[in-house]
Parts: sequence; structure tokens; C-alpha cells
Amino acid sequence: MTEETPPSVSAAILVIGDEILSGRTKDKNIGYIAEYLTGMGIDLREVRVVPDVEDEIVTALNALRHRYTYVFTTGGIGPTHDDITADSVAKAFGLPIGEDPRAIELLLQRIKPEDLNEARRRMARIPQGASLIQNAISKAPGFMVGNVVVMAGVPAIMQSMLDDVAPRLRAGARMIVDTVEAKGLPEGAYAAGLRDIATAHASVSIGSYPAFRDGTFHNQIVVRGKDAGAVEAAKAAVLALLDHLHGDGVPA
Amino acid sequence: MTEETPPSVSAAILVIGDEILSGRTKDKNIGYIAEYLTGMGIDLREVRVVPDVEDEIVTALNALRHRYTYVFTTGGIGPTHDDITADSVAKAFGLPIGEDPRAIELLLQRIKPEDLNEARRRMARIPQGASLIQNAISKAPGFMVGNVVVMAGVPAIMQSMLDDVAPRLRAGARMIVDTVEAKGLPEGAYAAGLRDIATAHASVSIGSYPAFRDGTFHNQIVVRGKDAGAVEAAKAAVLALLDHLHGDGVPA
Repeated sequence: MTEETPPSVSAAILVIGDEILSGRTKDKNIGYIAEYLTGMGIDLREVRVVPDVEDEIVTALNALRHRYTYVFTTGGIGPTHDDITADSVAKAFGLPIGEDPRAIELLLQRIKPEDLNEARRRMARIPQGASLIQNAISKAPGFMVGNVVVMAGVPAIMQSMLDDVAPRLRAGARMIVDTVEAKGLPEGAYAAGLRDIATAHASVSIGSYPAFRDGTFHNQIVVRGKDAGAVEAAKAAVLALLDHLHGDGVPA
Repeated sequence: MTEETPPSVSAAILVIGDEILSGRTKDKNIGYIAEYLTGMGIDLREVRVVPDVEDEIVTALNALRHRYTYVFTTGGIGPTHDDITADSVAKAFGLPIGEDPRAIELLLQRIKPEDLNEARRRMARIPQGASLIQNAISKAPGFMVGNVVVMAGVPAIMQSMLDDVAPRLRAGARMIVDTVEAKGLPEGAYAAGLRDIATAHASVSIGSYPAFRDGTFHNQIVVRGKDAGAVEAAKAAVLALLDHLHGDGVPA
């Protein structure tokens, strides 16, 4: 391969919400965003879940935004008193925050002027200089400020926002992922051989993932990398190892 | 209430695994552990997901274990080269790690002596001074060292380990949780009233959780606290607010 490798693009997710930490709501956004970013060649490197507490949000956001290309937050942008994400993000950046006329305009597409009370106007509080992120469902916008993408916690709304903001993000080289079924072989049988393959093919990442269903293990070996040739070579080595372990007559 | 309030018991979860960050595997452990801990009166305060990288695991674990009563880790304790949790935990504590005869004994309950190869023996690497955590499925143990509980990533095994370790944990005062259906009222209609109730009932935590199903919002207001009387009083105020907004004739 003589092509230049594009610079890597990294990301973190910050989930904001007491309801996730109490177990009352089961998060569905982490897995969705993870797959979405992987599809764009953006490497998700860390996730944090914090409660609806300003200090916790500010501290986590400042730790993450300096470390990764992008940070995606979910939750806490509704009209109720426990929705403090927009103000916390403004505080983390040291930016002023106020009612954004563009956000008011969006809200008025769904809410009658006489129903636009003080609580609903809270949803138009946007840090200065942010660009808005629209969604087709509630009209209440998220926003992007610096490298931080602020989205709703309701999965359908978050997904709509992710589609809206995606064209504004820098994509990276897509990860090539190849999965090999271990077909009945236990991890302990192929671990030594797999370690040698991982050492010999250091430009790819090789993982072994056990799953337990119907009383048996169903293991998969996953080869991930950004160079198609390197992934192909490592996969061939894994297949040869499994062939060898199964005995020559058994296809892996 | 004249009873003494028991000291609060806090926790964090550290999920270890590239496969969660890539979106390939959807985490099922966070929600399970969150509910389990809530049931024991242990307050889950933070979650982090990090890749299979020693420095990342050590840094996150040291940040969390000094801050919370307990840290629960999931993932990375199998026999393959990408399973580096036990060694990373030992490093975080500055403890020696080696093959633990008690763990070898457990492994031999499931693995024939002639099949106990080097890779499988890796599953018996336990930091010095740790107590083992058993599971009914794979026999390969997790462990508890200091305030850190190290468990498998496969949900069925993790759940079995959590049952095994739970009696060793200090339980806290159970959170009392009461949920009120907003029955068609949008968040923006009750947000101002709810904020006033939250201010007047500061000893409980009041959250509003929108869900979007079949094209409509189904909002719930959740009152959480450790004092039954305080939760009851706040709930009564919420019901009165919803009654008022629905009009007197409509039950909330």
C-alpha cells in the first residue's frame, strides 16, 4: 500500500443521566453511536456515564474534550429542572449562554406561541457560537460547540440528531473488520496460537470474544485494521490456525 | 423519622473492552449491575468504558477506586492475549500477581489436567491478597482486591459472579423510587411546577423522563429518596400538580 494513511479521528461519549445510573433506563445510545462512528471511520475510545450534577458534567467534559477529536453527549436537554446539560457545557467552555433566536424559531414550528412558556424556552438556551443540530421529532435542537456534540437522550431523537450533525464531522479511514467463527473450539485451545499471530501481525488488532448461549460457548475471533491487506493476511493466519487445531480434514 | 441514616455506599463500573467501543458487542452489563446495586442500596455514581489497553485501564481504575466505595469491572479475564484485566488491576494497586493455587483448583473442576495449557493457566493469575469470586458456568474465577470487584464480560457469567460476591459487600439504605405517569401531559406543561416541587422537597431527587413510542411522548416523573415520608410527600405534590394541570375532573 502506497497510499498515505489519513490521520485518525477519535471520539468519546458522555452519557448524562441519573436514570441510567439507577438502572431505571437501560441505555441504548452507546451501542448505536459506537456503530455509527465506526461506520464513519471515527474511533470511539472512551465512554463515561455521569449523574445530573453540574460539577460532574463539567469535569468529565473537560477531561474528554481535550483528549479526543469529538465528544458526543446524550441526555439532559429537555425543559425540566433536571435538564442542565446546555448550561454545564457552556460552563465547561467558559462561554456565555442565552436564549437563541434560531432555537426559538425551531420550537415555534411545533409549539404554539401562547404555549411557549418559560420552561419550554429553556430548550432554546444555547452556548454562544454553537451551531444547532436539528431533529425531525421534537424540533427542540441539540447543538455543536467546539468539538462537542450535544444531543437528546431519547434514542429516536438522538438518532435523528446524529444524522443531522454527521456531515459536519471529519470522517477517518474506515476500520475493516473481519470475523472468524471458532466453530466449537474453546478459547483455551487457540489462545497460544492466536497470541503468536497477534504478535506477528502487530498492525491489526485481534480479539477473541466468547458468547454463552444454550449452555455452550460460541467464540468469535475478530480481526480489525485499516489496511485491507494486513487484515486479510492476519485473517488467513487465524483460519490456518483453526484448520490446524480442528485437524486437517475439518474446515474451520 | 428518628432512625440514624446509614452512611451512603457508592460505586462505579469500569467496562473493559474494544468490542463495546467498536459497537460490535452491545453492553448488557451496565444496566444489570446498576439495577442490582440500586436494589442493595449502593449508589452507582459513574461508569466508564475503556479499551483493552493497560495504561487506560490502570488510569481509569485508580481514578475510580479512590473516589467510590466499590468499583466493579467487567471483561478481559479470559485466556487470550487481549485479556489483560487481572494484570492491569495488579499494576493499579502495585501488587504482585501470579498463578493462584485456589484458582487452578477451580479450573480443574472443568478442565482436564492435560488440557490445562499455558493460556488456560492465565485465567488463574490473581493479584496477591485477592479473594476469589466464583461462577457456576465457566468455573474461571473473578476476584475482589481492596474495593475492586473484577468480573467476566459474558453477561451470564458476570451475573453469577455478582451473586457470589454480593454478600461480601456493604449494603446501604435502599433508595425508594416512586413513578408517576404524566398521562399525556408534555414536559413543558409541568416543568415550572415540577421545579418548584423539587426546590421545596430538596431531600429527594425528582426527574422527568420522556420516552417516545408510537409517535407520542409518554412521560414519567420519578421521585427518589431514602426517606419514605419525604418521597411520599413529594409524590403527593407531583400528583396534585398533575391533577391541577389536567383540570380537577381528570385523575392524573
